[in-house]
Amino acid sequence: MLSKNVYFFGGGKAEGGAKMREVLGEKGANLAEMTNLGLPVPPGFTITTEACAAYLENGGNYPKDLDTEVHYALTRLEKLIGKKLGDPKNPLFVSVRPGTALSMNRAAGRSQAEAPSMESILNLGLNDQSAARLAEQSGDPRFAWDAYRRFIQMYACAVLGVNAKRFEDAANAARKAQADLTADDLKGLVDGYKKIVRAETKREFPQNVQDQLWGAIEAAFASRGNTLAVSPDTKGAKTCMGTAVTVQTMVFGNMGGDSGVGVCSSRDPLTGKNEFCGRYVPHAQGKDGTTGVREPQNLSVLQKTMPLVYKKLSDAKNRLEKHFRDMQEIEFTIQQGKLFLLQTDSAGRSGAAAVKCALDMVKEGRIDKEEAIMRVTPGHLDALFQPIPESAETHAATTVSLSAEGEQEAAARHPEEEEERAAPKITKELETFLGWCDEVRDDSLRGEIKGFRIRADADIPDEAKYAFEFGADGVGLCRTERMFFDPKKLLHFQAAILAETAEERKAALKKLLPFQKRDFAWLFKAMNGKPVVIRLLDPPLHEFVPQTKADTETLAAYLDMKAKDVQAKIDLLRERNLLDYRGCRLAVIYPEIYDIQIEAIALAAVDCVQKTIPAHPEIIVPLVSDPAELALIRSRAEAVWQKVQNKTDTKIPFRFGAMIETPRAAFLAKEIAEYADFFSFGTDRLTRAMFALSRNNAASFVSACLAKNLLDADPLRTIDERGVGEVLTLAAARGREEKGDLKCGLCGEHGGDPETIDFCYRAGLSYVSCPPCRIPLARLAGAQAVIRNA
Amino acid sequence: MLSKNVYFFGGGKAEGGAKMREVLGEKGANLAEMTNLGLPVPPGFTITTEACAAYLENGGNYPKDLDTEVHYALTRLEKLIGKKLGDPKNPLFVSVRPGTALSMNRAAGRSQAEAPSMESILNLGLNDQSAARLAEQSGDPRFAWDAYRRFIQMYACAVLGVNAKRFEDAANAARKAQADLTADDLKGLVDGYKKIVRAETKREFPQNVQDQLWGAIEAAFASRGNTLAVSPDTKGAKTCMGTAVTVQTMVFGNMGGDSGVGVCSSRDPLTGKNEFCGRYVPHAQGKDGTTGVREPQNLSVLQKTMPLVYKKLSDAKNRLEKHFRDMQEIEFTIQQGKLFLLQTDSAGRSGAAAVKCALDMVKEGRIDKEEAIMRVTPGHLDALFQPIPESAETHAATTVSLSAEGEQEAAARHPEEEEERAAPKITKELETFLGWCDEVRDDSLRGEIKGFRIRADADIPDEAKYAFEFGADGVGLCRTERMFFDPKKLLHFQAAILAETAEERKAALKKLLPFQKRDFAWLFKAMNGKPVVIRLLDPPLHEFVPQTKADTETLAAYLDMKAKDVQAKIDLLRERNLLDYRGCRLAVIYPEIYDIQIEAIALAAVDCVQKTIPAHPEIIVPLVSDPAELALIRSRAEAVWQKVQNKTDTKIPFRFGAMIETPRAAFLAKEIAEYADFFSFGTDRLTRAMFALSRNNAASFVSACLAKNLLDADPLRTIDERGVGEVLTLAAARGREEKGDLKCGLCGEHGGDPETIDFCYRAGLSYVSCPPCRIPLARLAGAQAVIRNA
Repeated sequence: MLSKNVYFFGGGKAEGGAKMREVLGEKGANLAEMTNLGLPVPPGFTITTEACAAYLENGGNYPKDLDTEVHYALTRLEKLIGKKLGDPKNPLFVSVRPGTALSMNRAAGRSQAEAPSMESILNLGLNDQSAARLAEQSGDPRFAWDAYRRFIQMYACAVLGVNAKRFEDAANAARKAQADLTADDLKGLVDGYKKIVRAETKREFPQNVQDQLWGAIEAAFASRGNTLAVSPDTKGAKTCMGTAVTVQTMVFGNMGGDSGVGVCSSRDPLTGKNEFCGRYVPHAQGKDGTTGVREPQNLSVLQKTMPLVYKKLSDAKNRLEKHFRDMQEIEFTIQQGKLFLLQTDSAGRSGAAAVKCALDMVKEGRIDKEEAIMRVTPGHLDALFQPIPESAETHAATTVSLSAEGEQEAAARHPEEEEERAAPKITKELETFLGWCDEVRDDSLRGEIKGFRIRADADIPDEAKYAFEFGADGVGLCRTERMFFDPKKLLHFQAAILAETAEERKAALKKLLPFQKRDFAWLFKAMNGKPVVIRLLDPPLHEFVPQTKADTETLAAYLDMKAKDVQAKIDLLRERNLLDYRGCRLAVIYPEIYDIQIEAIALAAVDCVQKTIPAHPEIIVPLVSDPAELALIRSRAEAVWQKVQNKTDTKIPFRFGAMIETPRAAFLAKEIAEYADFFSFGTDRLTRAMFALSRNNAASFVSACLAKNLLDADPLRTIDERGVGEVLTLAAARGREEKGDLKCGLCGEHGGDPETIDFCYRAGLSYVSCPPCRIPLARLAGAQAVIRNA
Repeated sequence: MLSKNVYFFGGGKAEGGAKMREVLGEKGANLAEMTNLGLPVPPGFTITTEACAAYLENGGNYPKDLDTEVHYALTRLEKLIGKKLGDPKNPLFVSVRPGTALSMNRAAGRSQAEAPSMESILNLGLNDQSAARLAEQSGDPRFAWDAYRRFIQMYACAVLGVNAKRFEDAANAARKAQADLTADDLKGLVDGYKKIVRAETKREFPQNVQDQLWGAIEAAFASRGNTLAVSPDTKGAKTCMGTAVTVQTMVFGNMGGDSGVGVCSSRDPLTGKNEFCGRYVPHAQGKDGTTGVREPQNLSVLQKTMPLVYKKLSDAKNRLEKHFRDMQEIEFTIQQGKLFLLQTDSAGRSGAAAVKCALDMVKEGRIDKEEAIMRVTPGHLDALFQPIPESAETHAATTVSLSAEGEQEAAARHPEEEEERAAPKITKELETFLGWCDEVRDDSLRGEIKGFRIRADADIPDEAKYAFEFGADGVGLCRTERMFFDPKKLLHFQAAILAETAEERKAALKKLLPFQKRDFAWLFKAMNGKPVVIRLLDPPLHEFVPQTKADTETLAAYLDMKAKDVQAKIDLLRERNLLDYRGCRLAVIYPEIYDIQIEAIALAAVDCVQKTIPAHPEIIVPLVSDPAELALIRSRAEAVWQKVQNKTDTKIPFRFGAMIETPRAAFLAKEIAEYADFFSFGTDRLTRAMFALSRNNAASFVSACLAKNLLDADPLRTIDERGVGEVLTLAAARGREEKGDLKCGLCGEHGGDPETIDFCYRAGLSYVSCPPCRIPLARLAGAQAVIRNA
């Protein structure tokens, strides 16, 4: 069965409607819907996206019967209006507008929005004859020749590929000669424009209106954007979606003072308040309102000058918002006192407006909470929350002194008491909205996995505090090395690295114990009983040894040694490759480092619990590649933990997990799960290992691949589902072969990416962890994932 | 049902036999076998490995009934001999020998052979009373006290943990006082030894012979080696195999001139010739023959002095070799003119002997070809073939001049004509043997995969020539960068890297074309129609740019530029990360490099074919991580290839493959196979990616893990089956989902490792590729894999 290629709208009735966006394009579908609602829409017809796709797939041949269908629809239109395209006596004029399935406003939240493939062409049907007739009929030759001039330019640029500058230059030259162009001036310009077309294309500007029409249709079909259009449903698959083409009776906003064009919004797009607002430009056509050619006026002017038109517009706005159950942006034209609606669309809005509007619409009973959640995009929240200022990050670090005594003093000054600088705040309205998101995530159920949590990457107490305020369900990643890099603690750690015996090393590390204990205790306190995942030391030791001569001298002074002897020690360690180990491989050579970290965590937890602050430490081991490694580290950790419990006579539960960030760990996940209570996927490192990318060239490789269309998205930003996603899924499944209820999470940069969050939900992960500033966004994205995949 | 713990042998009949090695240990099993053959074996009994394993698994408790069974066997032995352990009138003396399931000779070919867990204890049953009686019975008090002295030392060291040095010092002190020790001296030494035991263990040396016996059994059971014994069947799994313990009637080789001990081999273990040979030490016990205490004599001396004993030994040797169908090494003792056999085992042998012996045994109709193949270990061949000397490798490179004219001149001097230095040779006998191996591999069938080939990694024509002589089935990996690194060609390539436009780059690369064409043509010629896998350029460009000031100046002179301008260009490229790309990622930024390589390969193939030399190029793309990359590179390659074909009017088929060396490529193997005719697994890089290991720290990490038992083998030497093996298997399976007959191979260092070769056969790979010097070993290992997995 052949599909219908052309859909008619007009006379109070339309074929198709708002639900046919994929076929009619956003514009065509909404025009049909408005027509069916009885709103004043200039009649016309829409050629489907499918017809366009067929044209492209068939090497530029129109689908069979398209011409017949267009001819039929045009005849129907001419009958309805009582005018005929190209008729010398009573000419019909139309606009030709391309429209993709995805409106620009809807696309704004996505990463790869496609620009419309071709600019709209207005006033089609004008030629030398009909222009003269329009001048006569309208009694306004100036208007008629101006319309013709505009048409030639639009058509020549969009269809014939002539550079717009040529026309603009000619118009400017004419204006220079005379301030206000007369009808004759404009007629002269028409001649000039036609000459430009002849010179540039070696052909006359088409006088045949059928040629004009089909030229415009073909240009819309063949425009370059179409062939590369990205389908929104099959992320990244390059399929041809096609462009719908709407042919619509022209109405003119430039027929005098009682004419004009405007755009209005059913609510305030900046604040979201339920206030009708918009702009209106009298005596204008098309983009005049937005290009600064004319000064736009507030809608209140319209209300005063044409109260009936305003009333009609306001009624239509109410009707449309109620019908579409969303804030609408409406394009309108007034032709000699008569209102026409040319387009309606979900209105673009600020983040604050999106939240307010969603909340209000639920209160007004128009939408339910789930729909409200889907109305706000992660992009809306992204703009509201920027990364935490660096000065705040390092704050805790700079307020402590070197000695253990000083530490205790500093401990008394809890960061909470200090008054967190200009920090982003969550408004009450946003909190209500995000609360709804939390409910959706909390209630979600995938098999036996209940809930989908959002945790924060938080290395230092300040970050944890932000994270808590932003509504994190816990800390998903505390990178303990940030605590070591602190200049006040670094010397002790450098001494430990340079120690020659395990005993010497233990002694040096012991000095770090109170610092670490305090940091961990603050973390637990900041999270107030929510779980805190602490990653044991990860970076290679060479990142910690002195890099400059001055640093070496400082360390030498601290160790009471000569600088050159310190340097010699470092060189020796480097030669023996002892500085290159990272992740849990460190524990293979220097097990004492993890020992001290475990002890600090245990002591901090005991401290909290003894002060009736709940603490839920979850210790995680980085860079695991073999179950034997994890078994070794776990048994040592358990021994240290037990020792602290015995000494303090306090029982503290802790969970022990593995970071899955080498592909080998994914394959051996079943065996690793024997020694792990949970998994955390370190997808940044996992991605680099899967691609065999080094830190150095990852960014430049990815951008080169994106430029050459070899990758659909940056895999270090949005999880690479086909590769990294698969290995993650494999690891989770294998881990659960060993432990059916094994909790899995993801941490790091990916955790704040909405598409990755959606993947994680589908993959059965229990949580994602992201930087604190992305927590609000992630709370939303997580809820949307639940709803989307229900 | 309880298993039998003790097996008796003696009186011409034995329980068990050679096939019960796993239960009786190599030694016990062979003694039983020899007894059943009617050979003169001192009777005794063997306690099973299972009894030992049960003892260890039960925390040091003997299995139920062991004591009863030992008591019964001992009684039976005493009855047979007519003497009783500890009997004051007619004492029996026994040896206690531990024995693992794997003999030392058999284990020699493996990487992790376990040393026997305890030294043998001879003369058990001696105490103050029985020693005196032995002196009386033998009429040789010197012999008796010497035997007792030896027993105390052996027992104290093996069972009581006393340091042997204490006894040696005492013996040396005695010897210093007097050149030849008398019976009284030795009796005095016995007293001294007993004092040492008392001092060291705070106990008297046990006089109770039952205590002696059980002490020895328990020491053998509990010795440290057992608990760590590595089972040979489940590679790397640490299971307790247990040690068998053989208790055997003592015979004495130190009872005068007509006594002695010796070891003989049924053929020459160095050459493999069928000549009876061995050593014999008169008037000696135990290790006297090997420790230099006495001078060993050739067997011909025995033939002269004791012709009847020699005849009996020679007959026994013939009988044993025929029976075991392998070269035997036999331990014997002569006690007062009477021959006893104490042990037989497959004889250790040199590589040459292993091959000769295997060939001869087939000729003699004793074994079939498959058995012959299994008789030679890869280790035997490894020693015969060392890596090709560096001077030979670089030879081709240094005989060419810079200009294209010079190149043609050089081309006339084909490397084959030069007389290609001391290269290892394959002997005629080895060639026959390896020919059998080839047949086995050629005929092998796994599903639809016929044959299992051995190819060589060969970067330059010389290597290919060696590989061909060594019997390679083709080149499995030609790393083309070796051709670029040649100093004469490097300048052109450096010029290409610094080029600012694609055109400039093409011009510089064009100069490399004749060099590359010639190299490839030589490769094809050297392989004479066998397939040649050529890997397109792989290393990052920064490896090619000048590293020293002198190099920069040379390049500057060549480019007619200032050195600092050259350096500035390099710095700029480095800043823009353009030098960091490697593998096919190079082709994303500089597609011209691969273009020129493809052109050179095509021209070389045309050249060969036009000279009626068959050429089968197989082009392979390194570091693929996405099907889109491969599609892009393949379409470009096909275009270049077609151009050469058109220009030369010659049709040359080529195959196009992907290196699977990123884990992501393995996951996307189905999609990648759309654009690949074959896969080659680069397991070196794949291993590093799976473990997330950098080049820098891989070696040191691996050795640390091996030392801590975190890894069973070096994964960069023997493929890590659990991780890398699995991802490889996944990739092959997914690739074959797309193309059922997709050929897969492995290349690089792993390709020369016997265990990896076995894995590759099981994984359904069509070939492995290894360095030329390992080709003979790989031909053997490949055949063994076929037989082992039949």
